[in-house]
Amino acid sequence: MPEQDDVFMQQALAMAQQGVELGHGGPFGAVIVVDGRIIGRGWNQVVHLNDPTAHAEMLAIRNACEVSGNFHLHQATLYTTCEPCPMCLSAAYWARIDKLVYGATAKDAAAIGFVDDWILEELRKPQGSRRMRTSQRFQKECRDLFEHWQQSEKRIDY
Amino acid sequence: MPEQDDVFMQQALAMAQQGVELGHGGPFGAVIVVDGRIIGRGWNQVVHLNDPTAHAEMLAIRNACEVSGNFHLHQATLYTTCEPCPMCLSAAYWARIDKLVYGATAKDAAAIGFVDDWILEELRKPQGSRRMRTSQRFQKECRDLFEHWQQSEKRIDY
Repeated sequence: MPEQDDVFMQQALAMAQQGVELGHGGPFGAVIVVDGRIIGRGWNQVVHLNDPTAHAEMLAIRNACEVSGNFHLHQATLYTTCEPCPMCLSAAYWARIDKLVYGATAKDAAAIGFVDDWILEELRKPQGSRRMRTSQRFQKECRDLFEHWQQSEKRIDY
Repeated sequence: MPEQDDVFMQQALAMAQQGVELGHGGPFGAVIVVDGRIIGRGWNQVVHLNDPTAHAEMLAIRNACEVSGNFHLHQATLYTTCEPCPMCLSAAYWARIDKLVYGATAKDAAAIGFVDDWILEELRKPQGSRRMRTSQRFQKECRDLFEHWQQSEKRIDY
């Protein structure tokens, strides 16, 4: 459905334009569509909210999940003005997004200062080689809590 | 500082326990520490908030950034009861977290149903090979907005 894709990309672009006008953060927008209807919208608000996770895609996913009352979105398409960063793409997988349509590439974003390729490079490295110094403690205590949770009546699997 | 690490891991564990008691989601907790002081806390609230991004680490990062009024956390340590998933680790990099201390491993989490290794596998694949069907549209329009943003007086680089 290329025409429908164009309509929704236009809406993602409108979100990005709004964010630029408001000065909320980077020039990025996104919408989530299910059954031909927009159920979530977002634009980058990292600066406005002092929230490094407030990328357009994250806010659109959170909005769509809130509206649909479900932390999984099925048969959903994420339209975004730029190729998602590793955080946003991971979130899209957690949300079970089915299809992705994007505009500019990560390289286009890097050209205006939004560089994210180093993050995936870091994720691919073994822990000891990452720039984020990493250590492990309390494994037993944390695993004990896992077991306690497994036996909890309040447990909701997801 | 192993003793200090233990004190803060205990606090991350307390957050996870609280989440389990409240039935908010998975048995995971996190705290962010700067200069020996906790500035952010979080526990998994995916179920409670219907938000697939509401992992303990994400909420702790967002809390710490809100408290410090900055989308970058410098010299910060993330203490978390479980090895972060790709989304949370990416967010930690965006937030410029310096150091990571975790308890249980991703494998321990997988054993109780929280499997995330497939996400990094997906991220590593070329777009055409991912299970999320991906296409590109409107590159020019999105790049045009990038240029417009670059010339905007409201621009804040980050």
